[in-house]
Amino acid sequence: MSDPVLDHLLGDHDGILDRLIEYARIPSVSTDAAYADGMAAARKLLAGRLEAAGFNNVKQIAKGGHPAVYGEWLGLSGAPTYLVYGHYDVQPPDPLDKWHSPPFDPQIREGRLYGRGVSDDKGPASIALEVLFAYLSVEGRLPVNIKLLLEGEEEVGSATLPAILEHNAKLLQADAVISADGARWRADLPSVNVGSRGNMAFELALRTASKDLHSGRFGGAVPNAAHVLAGLVADLHSPDGRVSVDGFYDGVGDPDETIGIDIASLPFDEEAFFAAIGSAPFGEKGFSTLERLWLRPTLEINGMWSGYTGEGGKTVTPAEAFAKITTRLVPGQDPAHVAQALQRHFGHACPAGASIEFAPRDDGNAAYLVPPDLPLLLAVEDAIEDALGARPVRVRVGSTLPLSDMIKRALGIDTVTLSFSTADEDFHSPNEFFRLSAIEEGMTAWTSLLRRLGRVTE
Amino acid sequence: MSDPVLDHLLGDHDGILDRLIEYARIPSVSTDAAYADGMAAARKLLAGRLEAAGFNNVKQIAKGGHPAVYGEWLGLSGAPTYLVYGHYDVQPPDPLDKWHSPPFDPQIREGRLYGRGVSDDKGPASIALEVLFAYLSVEGRLPVNIKLLLEGEEEVGSATLPAILEHNAKLLQADAVISADGARWRADLPSVNVGSRGNMAFELALRTASKDLHSGRFGGAVPNAAHVLAGLVADLHSPDGRVSVDGFYDGVGDPDETIGIDIASLPFDEEAFFAAIGSAPFGEKGFSTLERLWLRPTLEINGMWSGYTGEGGKTVTPAEAFAKITTRLVPGQDPAHVAQALQRHFGHACPAGASIEFAPRDDGNAAYLVPPDLPLLLAVEDAIEDALGARPVRVRVGSTLPLSDMIKRALGIDTVTLSFSTADEDFHSPNEFFRLSAIEEGMTAWTSLLRRLGRVTE
Repeated sequence: MSDPVLDHLLGDHDGILDRLIEYARIPSVSTDAAYADGMAAARKLLAGRLEAAGFNNVKQIAKGGHPAVYGEWLGLSGAPTYLVYGHYDVQPPDPLDKWHSPPFDPQIREGRLYGRGVSDDKGPASIALEVLFAYLSVEGRLPVNIKLLLEGEEEVGSATLPAILEHNAKLLQADAVISADGARWRADLPSVNVGSRGNMAFELALRTASKDLHSGRFGGAVPNAAHVLAGLVADLHSPDGRVSVDGFYDGVGDPDETIGIDIASLPFDEEAFFAAIGSAPFGEKGFSTLERLWLRPTLEINGMWSGYTGEGGKTVTPAEAFAKITTRLVPGQDPAHVAQALQRHFGHACPAGASIEFAPRDDGNAAYLVPPDLPLLLAVEDAIEDALGARPVRVRVGSTLPLSDMIKRALGIDTVTLSFSTADEDFHSPNEFFRLSAIEEGMTAWTSLLRRLGRVTE
Repeated sequence: MSDPVLDHLLGDHDGILDRLIEYARIPSVSTDAAYADGMAAARKLLAGRLEAAGFNNVKQIAKGGHPAVYGEWLGLSGAPTYLVYGHYDVQPPDPLDKWHSPPFDPQIREGRLYGRGVSDDKGPASIALEVLFAYLSVEGRLPVNIKLLLEGEEEVGSATLPAILEHNAKLLQADAVISADGARWRADLPSVNVGSRGNMAFELALRTASKDLHSGRFGGAVPNAAHVLAGLVADLHSPDGRVSVDGFYDGVGDPDETIGIDIASLPFDEEAFFAAIGSAPFGEKGFSTLERLWLRPTLEINGMWSGYTGEGGKTVTPAEAFAKITTRLVPGQDPAHVAQALQRHFGHACPAGASIEFAPRDDGNAAYLVPPDLPLLLAVEDAIEDALGARPVRVRVGSTLPLSDMIKRALGIDTVTLSFSTADEDFHSPNEFFRLSAIEEGMTAWTSLLRRLGRVTE
């Protein structure tokens, strides 16, 4: 079934690719002040394109960090409004010597565009923008009202995004958010992500003496900080793989109630999954691998260290030990409540002769679950089916998508991701690439999505 | 009771101090090839002094490392022969900016001589040499036969000393060894050390995946190397503080049988001991602090690390974890047997999904105990009483004195330490010093010791 907007887009293939390459040439690295000019150039390019396409109120909004670019088209009084999210900042290109072509001189090889940021998130965001621009060009209007928010700090933890959202809550208010950022679970299986785990990070430091002690002169008669830390870490889990912290599971629902997806029916090659990482199945008893990844919370050491860690030996009884800890949280768990449970736990667990400092690194993010009957979700599923010819399966991710939780907290609305990036596109590594086939798939889906969202109100 | 040799020594106070300062000016740092000239200069000075004093067969003996200086006076046919041990190499002087006077320009301040090596071991060894030289000068003979071995690698682990001893076993054969190296337990309590713990060092590495994994994408469904290591370390000790490794205690005697010293009667201010190190009593149940330090073996982590240990956070599930481990061994424990017990333990303890590499770093050293009725020990106790006016208490040390074990294994003889260095003289730190009062105390004790050893045979 032909769509005039999609026909226009497909006919402009070379122009769309040229504009993506022009955009990806800009070194908009948010983490390094040396790239400030690139960040400004990316904002200028985006603002210019939005204005040229007919977006209104185009401006930069900031709260102390890299500004976000905002624009709106609100030509349909009474129609629903969607906030489209993307980000214009990219990861640093290092290590430069690992790139087969320069990171900021995008090159096409074997159906893929190589360059820093092409998959995360300049390619996927450009798809959304090109579709919006095509609607305005071909039909003089959009099917629904659209607000655009293009963030400049996604790659540095979105530090000021919550403040930007709160201070612009009225400006940004919408019925729901469509995120053009994120990665498809697998390239070979149409899917839509309906949930992500939250996270909360902690630092633990413990001390057993005022300085490291000689293991001959003192060993055996003084506490050893490495032993104390090992005991604390070992006690965090019971033999059945559950987290042994009182209150940690408060609010966690029964998997059968909270699942929202049909994990058992998903094609999943467990053997290949573990072979690729040189590991073996492990974890909480009574759950499958995908259930452990998607539905169950974790408490993990990300790093720990104590005593002498250099070459050879040093006969020292360590006086200090440290650990970096994160939890992955599932729906029902409150990050602040989990932090309190852990603080209480370590307060009681500290043995005589040791002192512990334990603190969260920030406020964390709650898990996020798309309401299973959210109209936007149903429309996205239909749009993906239109683009890929198959009904997408509902999946979750074990990772944390802080955006959805931030949006929910600041604006009270839900977020659905429609991105045509894929998880294997090396977006935080050298030789990041974007499959050119995703451009047509993505434009088809976005065109269909907007058409369907507009149809609901007509 | 006047002794002509001691009178001669006391009358030569300035000369003795001048010669010590001349010796301590020589930067004989064994660990750094840049100091090779200093090492050679120290050997030349010592050999020259030995020959000038009347020692015979003065030469350097080596087995691939820094040579030791040897000399002998064997003028008493049929009399016992003692091997006197010291070392001419010193610790590196770094950090130089912490020194109040240059490390190799010795300075006297408030009754102390400051300089690198003055306490470890140039001062204590010079005392022994000056006494031997004075006997030869005043009486034309020594009271007993003496062989001198001045090592050049004590500060770098005596790597080639076992080979030197084995390949020169006939040359070095003696009735017993008097070591002029080592430190007195406390400055305020005359003591003689009758035992030291052995040691054995190990490296442990474990792996749970082929690379560190993203804690969101994999966490909860894969083993975490930091958790595995923590569990292994936590299981090394039982709640009562004993080492939970089958076979670890094989050969360890009942403290009442092996003690050889009267710990309960020793003055020991436990509160001050722990206050000085900001720590608290800890260890194996049923033993006092000194018993834990001197009579009980340990198994300790000297260092461990896994995952991300830098600033901020990294959401990683570590694939590798490492530990450095040492044991302190007591009489009856065989280092090789302990190593086998630990290798067996870690072979069984490794959980599914992890692989462990565990290996000893070297052959280790057994504990050493001076036979309680060794004639040399009794003579040393008498000599200390002569010098300090009080009977020394018998103590042990928790540290390892590899020399005694090496001597016992290579030459089959025992070693007693008579050193007037004190444990607080910063000998591995900046501003190393030697108490000038120790020179007279030491010369009195060494003069008396030689006189007493000679008297036995007369």
